[in-house]
Amino acid sequence: MKRMIIDMDDVIADATGQFINYYEREFGIRVDRNSLNHQEEGMGFPGNYEIIKQFPYREQFFQTMTPNEGSQLVIEELNRRYDLFIVSAAMEFPQSLPEKLSWLKEHFPFLSWKQIVFCGSKTVVHGDYMIDDLYYNLDGFNGEKYLFTAPHNLHIDRFNRVNNWNEVATRFL
Amino acid sequence: MKRMIIDMDDVIADATGQFINYYEREFGIRVDRNSLNHQEEGMGFPGNYEIIKQFPYREQFFQTMTPNEGSQLVIEELNRRYDLFIVSAAMEFPQSLPEKLSWLKEHFPFLSWKQIVFCGSKTVVHGDYMIDDLYYNLDGFNGEKYLFTAPHNLHIDRFNRVNNWNEVATRFL
Repeated sequence: MKRMIIDMDDVIADATGQFINYYEREFGIRVDRNSLNHQEEGMGFPGNYEIIKQFPYREQFFQTMTPNEGSQLVIEELNRRYDLFIVSAAMEFPQSLPEKLSWLKEHFPFLSWKQIVFCGSKTVVHGDYMIDDLYYNLDGFNGEKYLFTAPHNLHIDRFNRVNNWNEVATRFL
Repeated sequence: MKRMIIDMDDVIADATGQFINYYEREFGIRVDRNSLNHQEEGMGFPGNYEIIKQFPYREQFFQTMTPNEGSQLVIEELNRRYDLFIVSAAMEFPQSLPEKLSWLKEHFPFLSWKQIVFCGSKTVVHGDYMIDDLYYNLDGFNGEKYLFTAPHNLHIDRFNRVNNWNEVATRFL
Protein backbone atom coordinates (compact mmCIF):
# COMPACT_ATOMS: atom_id res chain seq x y z
CA MET A 1 0.00 0.00 0.00
CA LYS A 2 1.45 3.38 -0.98
CA ARG A 3 1.87 5.92 1.78
CA MET A 4 0.14 9.28 1.38
CA ILE A 5 0.93 12.32 3.55
CA ILE A 6 -1.84 14.94 3.72
CA ASP A 7 -1.56 18.38 5.33
CA MET A 8 -4.28 20.05 7.42
CA ASP A 9 -4.40 23.87 7.18
CA ASP A 10 -5.54 25.05 3.74
CA VAL A 11 -5.67 21.47 2.49
CA ILE A 12 -8.36 19.70 4.49
CA ALA A 13 -9.21 22.68 6.74
CA ASP A 14 -10.18 26.10 5.43
CA ALA A 15 -7.52 28.11 7.28
CA THR A 16 -7.79 31.02 4.85
CA GLY A 17 -11.53 31.22 5.50
CA GLN A 18 -10.84 31.22 9.22
CA PHE A 19 -8.47 34.20 8.85
CA ILE A 20 -11.20 35.99 6.87
CA ASN A 21 -13.74 35.23 9.62
CA TYR A 22 -11.47 36.39 12.43
CA TYR A 23 -10.51 39.52 10.53
CA GLU A 24 -14.15 40.38 9.98
CA ARG A 25 -14.95 39.81 13.64
CA GLU A 26 -12.05 42.06 14.68
CA PHE A 27 -12.31 44.86 12.12
CA GLY A 28 -15.82 44.63 10.69
CA ILE A 29 -14.57 44.14 7.13
CA ARG A 30 -15.14 40.95 5.13
CA VAL A 31 -12.09 40.53 2.92
CA ASP A 32 -12.68 38.94 -0.46
CA ARG A 33 -10.81 35.64 -0.76
CA ASN A 34 -9.54 36.52 -4.24
CA SER A 35 -7.89 39.67 -2.94
CA LEU A 36 -5.49 37.44 -1.01
CA ASN A 37 -4.19 35.79 -4.16
CA HIS A 38 -0.42 35.76 -4.71
CA GLN A 39 0.38 37.07 -1.24
CA GLU A 40 2.07 35.37 1.66
CA GLU A 41 -0.20 33.83 4.29
CA GLY A 42 -1.82 36.52 6.44
CA MET A 43 -0.33 39.30 4.29
CA GLY A 44 -3.25 40.15 2.03
CA PHE A 45 -5.35 41.71 4.77
CA PRO A 46 -5.36 45.51 4.92
CA GLY A 47 -3.00 46.69 7.70
CA ASN A 48 -2.96 45.35 11.22
CA TYR A 49 -0.54 42.57 10.41
CA GLU A 50 0.61 42.26 14.02
CA ILE A 51 -2.94 41.47 15.14
CA ILE A 52 -3.55 39.02 12.29
CA LYS A 53 -0.42 37.11 13.24
CA GLN A 54 -1.98 36.54 16.67
CA PHE A 55 -5.18 34.89 15.38
CA PRO A 56 -3.72 31.35 15.35
CA TYR A 57 -2.80 31.70 19.03
CA ARG A 58 -6.39 32.37 20.00
CA GLU A 59 -8.50 29.65 21.55
CA GLN A 60 -10.84 27.89 19.11
CA PHE A 61 -9.05 29.17 16.01
CA PHE A 62 -8.19 25.64 14.87
CA GLN A 63 -11.13 23.93 16.54
CA THR A 64 -13.75 25.84 14.56
CA MET A 65 -12.34 25.67 11.02
CA THR A 66 -14.57 24.43 8.22
CA PRO A 67 -13.41 21.29 6.39
CA ASN A 68 -12.55 22.04 2.77
CA GLU A 69 -15.26 21.00 0.33
CA GLY A 70 -15.08 17.35 -0.61
CA SER A 71 -12.16 16.58 1.70
CA GLN A 72 -14.14 14.29 3.98
CA LEU A 73 -15.64 12.05 1.30
CA VAL A 74 -12.45 11.83 -0.73
CA ILE A 75 -10.22 11.12 2.27
CA GLU A 76 -12.60 8.44 3.53
CA GLU A 77 -12.14 6.67 0.20
CA LEU A 78 -8.38 7.36 0.00
CA ASN A 79 -8.10 5.86 3.47
CA ARG A 80 -9.22 2.50 2.07
CA ARG A 81 -6.61 2.50 -0.68
CA TYR A 82 -3.56 4.20 0.82
CA ASP A 83 -1.47 4.08 3.98
CA LEU A 84 -2.67 7.54 4.89
CA PHE A 85 -1.23 10.02 7.39
CA ILE A 86 -2.40 13.50 8.31
CA VAL A 87 0.75 15.50 9.02
CA SER A 88 0.45 19.01 10.40
CA ALA A 89 3.29 21.37 11.29
CA ALA A 90 1.45 22.34 14.45
CA MET A 91 4.26 22.60 16.96
CA GLU A 92 4.59 26.36 16.50
CA PHE A 93 1.16 26.76 18.10
CA PRO A 94 1.14 24.53 21.19
CA GLN A 95 -2.47 25.28 22.07
CA SER A 96 -3.50 24.06 18.62
CA LEU A 97 -2.52 20.45 19.36
CA PRO A 98 -5.60 19.31 21.31
CA GLU A 99 -7.82 21.46 19.07
CA LYS A 100 -6.48 19.87 15.91
CA LEU A 101 -6.83 16.40 17.36
CA SER A 102 -10.41 17.03 18.39
CA TRP A 103 -11.17 18.67 15.02
CA LEU A 104 -9.94 15.56 13.21
CA LYS A 105 -12.03 13.33 15.46
CA GLU A 106 -15.09 15.46 14.73
CA HIS A 107 -14.74 15.81 10.96
CA PHE A 108 -12.71 12.71 10.01
CA PRO A 109 -13.98 10.13 12.52
CA PHE A 110 -12.87 7.24 10.29
CA LEU A 111 -9.19 8.12 10.86
CA SER A 112 -7.32 6.53 13.76
CA TRP A 113 -5.02 8.42 16.14
CA LYS A 114 -2.26 6.23 14.70
CA GLN A 115 -2.57 8.18 11.43
CA ILE A 116 -1.98 11.62 12.92
CA VAL A 117 1.38 13.39 13.11
CA PHE A 118 2.05 16.82 14.61
CA CYS A 119 5.53 18.09 13.95
CA GLY A 120 7.65 21.17 13.54
CA SER A 121 9.49 20.30 10.35
CA LYS A 122 8.06 17.79 7.86
CA THR A 123 11.52 16.76 6.64
CA VAL A 124 11.33 13.86 9.08
CA VAL A 125 8.33 12.15 7.47
CA HIS A 126 8.59 10.00 4.38
CA GLY A 127 6.14 8.44 2.01
CA ASP A 128 5.10 8.03 -1.61
CA TYR A 129 2.84 11.09 -2.02
CA MET A 130 2.52 14.39 -0.21
CA ILE A 131 -0.34 16.86 -0.64
CA ASP A 132 0.49 20.22 0.90
CA ASP A 133 -0.10 23.93 0.26
CA LEU A 134 3.40 25.04 1.30
CA TYR A 135 6.33 24.70 -1.08
CA TYR A 136 8.89 24.25 1.70
CA ASN A 137 7.08 21.19 3.04
CA LEU A 138 7.06 19.64 -0.42
CA ASP A 139 10.70 20.61 -1.06
CA GLY A 140 11.90 18.43 1.81
CA PHE A 141 9.80 15.39 0.86
CA ASN A 142 11.21 12.22 -0.66
CA GLY A 143 8.18 11.13 -2.74
CA GLU A 144 5.82 12.60 -5.34
CA LYS A 145 4.77 16.15 -4.47
CA TYR A 146 1.35 17.73 -5.00
CA LEU A 147 0.73 21.41 -4.30
CA PHE A 148 -2.82 22.00 -3.08
CA THR A 149 -3.99 25.36 -4.41
CA ALA A 150 -4.26 28.19 -1.89
CA PRO A 151 -4.14 31.98 -2.37
CA HIS A 152 -0.52 32.13 -1.21
CA ASN A 153 0.85 29.51 -3.63
CA LEU A 154 -0.68 30.50 -7.00
CA HIS A 155 2.67 31.75 -8.32
CA ILE A 156 4.49 28.46 -7.66
CA ASP A 157 4.72 26.20 -10.69
CA ARG A 158 7.41 23.65 -9.98
CA PHE A 159 5.07 20.97 -8.53
CA ASN A 160 2.13 18.92 -9.69
CA ARG A 161 -0.92 20.94 -8.68
CA VAL A 162 -4.32 19.88 -7.35
CA ASN A 163 -6.87 22.68 -7.21
CA ASN A 164 -9.50 21.00 -5.04
CA TRP A 165 -10.61 17.65 -3.64
CA ASN A 166 -12.34 16.66 -6.88
CA GLU A 167 -8.98 16.84 -8.58
CA VAL A 168 -7.37 14.80 -5.80
CA ALA A 169 -10.07 12.14 -6.35
CA THR A 170 -9.48 12.15 -10.10
CA ARG A 171 -5.74 11.69 -9.64
CA PHE A 172 -5.72 9.13 -6.82
CA LEU A 173 -9.03 7.21 -6.84
CA MET B 1 24.52 15.59 9.09
CA LYS B 2 23.05 12.23 10.11
CA ARG B 3 19.49 12.25 11.39
CA MET B 4 18.84 10.84 14.86
CA ILE B 5 15.36 10.00 16.18
CA ILE B 6 15.05 9.89 19.97
CA ASP B 7 12.01 8.72 21.94
CA MET B 8 10.64 10.37 25.10
CA ASP B 9 9.03 7.98 27.62
CA ASP B 10 11.57 5.65 29.24
CA VAL B 11 14.32 7.07 27.06
CA ILE B 12 14.73 10.72 28.03
CA ALA B 13 11.88 10.78 30.58
CA ASP B 14 11.59 8.36 33.49
CA ALA B 15 8.12 7.02 32.72
CA THR B 16 8.68 3.86 34.75
CA GLY B 17 9.58 5.99 37.78
CA GLN B 18 6.42 7.99 37.26
CA PHE B 19 4.28 4.83 37.30
CA ILE B 20 6.03 3.83 40.54
CA ASN B 21 5.32 7.27 42.04
CA TYR B 22 1.65 7.25 41.01
CA TYR B 23 1.20 3.68 42.24
CA GLU B 24 2.67 4.60 45.61
CA ARG B 25 0.44 7.66 45.87
CA GLU B 26 -2.63 5.56 45.03
CA PHE B 27 -1.92 2.36 47.00
CA GLY B 28 0.70 3.33 49.59
CA ILE B 29 3.20 0.75 48.30
CA ARG B 30 6.53 1.68 46.72
CA VAL B 31 7.21 -0.96 44.08
CA ASP B 32 10.88 -1.85 43.54
CA ARG B 33 11.97 -0.98 40.01
CA ASN B 34 13.73 -4.32 39.57
CA SER B 35 10.51 -6.20 40.29
CA LEU B 36 9.16 -4.80 37.01
CA ASN B 37 11.87 -6.46 34.95
CA HIS B 38 10.81 -8.65 32.03
CA GLN B 39 7.16 -7.62 32.25
CA GLU B 40 5.06 -5.59 29.85
CA GLU B 41 4.70 -1.89 30.66
CA GLY B 42 2.36 -1.35 33.61
CA MET B 43 2.06 -5.10 34.20
CA GLY B 44 4.57 -5.61 37.01
CA PHE B 45 2.50 -3.78 39.61
CA PRO B 46 0.54 -5.98 42.03
CA GLY B 47 -3.12 -6.10 40.93
CA ASN B 48 -5.21 -3.04 40.06
CA TYR B 49 -4.20 -3.09 36.40
CA GLU B 50 -7.29 -1.18 35.33
CA ILE B 51 -6.37 1.73 37.59
CA ILE B 52 -2.70 1.70 36.52
CA LYS B 53 -3.77 1.94 32.87
CA GLN B 54 -5.50 5.20 33.73
CA PHE B 55 -2.42 6.94 35.17
CA PRO B 56 -1.25 8.34 31.80
CA TYR B 57 -4.64 10.00 31.33
CA ARG B 58 -4.28 11.97 34.54
CA GLU B 59 -3.28 15.62 34.46
CA GLN B 60 0.38 16.28 35.14
CA PHE B 61 1.44 12.66 34.57
CA PHE B 62 3.71 13.64 31.69
CA GLN B 63 4.44 17.16 32.88
CA THR B 64 6.09 16.04 36.11
CA MET B 65 8.35 13.22 34.90
CA THR B 66 12.03 13.28 35.84
CA PRO B 67 14.50 13.43 32.96
CA ASN B 68 16.60 10.28 32.76
CA GLU B 69 20.09 10.69 34.22
CA GLY B 70 22.53 12.19 31.74
CA SER B 71 19.95 12.68 29.00
CA GLN B 72 20.10 16.47 29.09
CA LEU B 73 23.88 16.85 28.82
CA VAL B 74 24.27 14.14 26.21
CA ILE B 75 21.40 15.37 24.03
CA GLU B 76 22.69 18.93 24.18
CA GLU B 77 25.95 17.67 22.68
CA LEU B 78 24.27 15.28 20.21
CA ASN B 79 22.20 18.24 19.06
CA ARG B 80 25.39 19.92 17.79
CA ARG B 81 26.48 16.91 15.77
CA TYR B 82 23.26 15.34 14.50
CA ASP B 83 20.02 16.38 12.82
CA LEU B 84 18.11 15.48 15.93
CA PHE B 85 14.37 14.87 16.39
CA ILE B 86 12.42 13.95 19.50
CA VAL B 87 9.63 11.65 18.32
CA SER B 88 6.95 10.56 20.77
CA ALA B 89 3.97 8.31 20.07
CA ALA B 90 1.80 10.65 22.11
CA MET B 91 -1.42 10.68 20.10
CA GLU B 92 -3.04 7.97 22.24
CA PHE B 93 -3.09 10.43 25.15
CA PRO B 94 -4.37 13.75 23.75
CA GLN B 95 -3.97 15.62 27.02
CA SER B 96 -0.29 14.67 27.03
CA LEU B 97 0.50 16.82 24.00
CA PRO B 98 0.79 20.25 25.67
CA GLU B 99 2.36 18.63 28.74
CA LYS B 100 5.05 16.92 26.70
CA LEU B 101 5.76 20.10 24.78
CA SER B 102 6.10 22.12 27.95
CA TRP B 103 8.22 19.38 29.58
CA LEU B 104 10.64 19.50 26.65
CA LYS B 105 10.83 23.28 26.86
CA GLU B 106 11.58 23.03 30.57
CA HIS B 107 14.19 20.26 30.52
CA PHE B 108 15.62 20.54 26.99
CA PRO B 109 15.46 24.30 26.34
CA PHE B 110 18.15 24.06 23.64
CA LEU B 111 15.80 22.10 21.35
CA SER B 112 13.60 23.98 18.91
CA TRP B 113 9.90 23.22 18.31
CA LYS B 114 10.99 22.27 14.81
CA GLN B 115 12.69 19.19 16.24
CA ILE B 116 9.61 17.78 17.97
CA VAL B 117 7.24 15.19 16.50
CA PHE B 118 4.15 13.76 18.16
CA CYS B 119 2.64 10.87 16.26
CA GLY B 120 0.59 7.72 16.58
CA SER B 121 2.75 5.34 14.59
CA LYS B 122 6.47 5.97 14.11
CA THR B 123 6.55 4.12 10.80
CA VAL B 124 6.14 7.50 9.11
CA VAL B 125 9.45 8.97 10.33
CA HIS B 126 12.77 8.18 8.77
CA GLY B 127 16.37 8.80 9.68
CA ASP B 128 19.79 7.27 10.21
CA TYR B 129 19.51 6.27 13.89
CA MET B 130 16.62 5.61 16.24
CA ILE B 131 16.89 5.25 20.02
CA ASP B 132 13.71 3.79 21.52
CA ASP B 133 12.63 1.46 24.32
CA LEU B 134 9.86 -0.25 22.30
CA TYR B 135 10.71 -2.98 19.81
CA TYR B 136 7.75 -2.22 17.56
CA ASN B 137 8.94 1.35 17.03
CA LEU B 138 12.39 0.09 16.05
CA ASP B 139 10.94 -2.66 13.85
CA GLY B 140 9.31 -0.13 11.53
CA PHE B 141 12.38 2.10 11.24
CA ASN B 142 14.56 2.37 8.14
CA GLY B 143 17.90 3.20 9.80
CA GLU B 144 20.14 1.80 12.56
CA LYS B 145 18.13 0.76 15.61
CA TYR B 146 19.15 1.14 19.26
CA LEU B 147 17.06 -0.33 22.06
CA PHE B 148 17.25 1.83 25.19
CA THR B 149 17.10 -0.46 28.22
CA ALA B 150 13.88 -0.42 30.22
CA PRO B 151 12.33 -3.06 32.54
CA HIS B 152 9.90 -4.17 29.81
CA ASN B 153 12.53 -4.81 27.10
CA LEU B 154 15.26 -6.79 28.91
CA HIS B 155 14.32 -10.02 27.10
CA ILE B 156 14.70 -8.52 23.62
CA ASP B 157 18.06 -9.18 22.01
CA ARG B 158 17.69 -8.53 18.31
CA PHE B 159 18.80 -4.86 18.42
CA ASN B 160 21.88 -2.92 19.41
CA ARG B 161 21.33 -2.00 23.03
CA VAL B 162 22.19 1.15 25.01
CA ASN B 163 21.74 0.79 28.76
CA ASN B 164 21.93 4.45 29.73
CA TRP B 165 22.93 7.89 28.47
CA ASN B 166 26.61 7.29 29.18
CA GLU B 167 26.50 4.45 26.69
CA VAL B 168 24.71 6.66 24.16
CA ALA B 169 27.52 9.22 24.57
CA THR B 170 30.18 6.56 24.11
CA ARG B 171 28.53 5.29 20.93
CA PHE B 172 27.60 8.61 19.29
CA LEU B 173 29.88 11.36 20.62
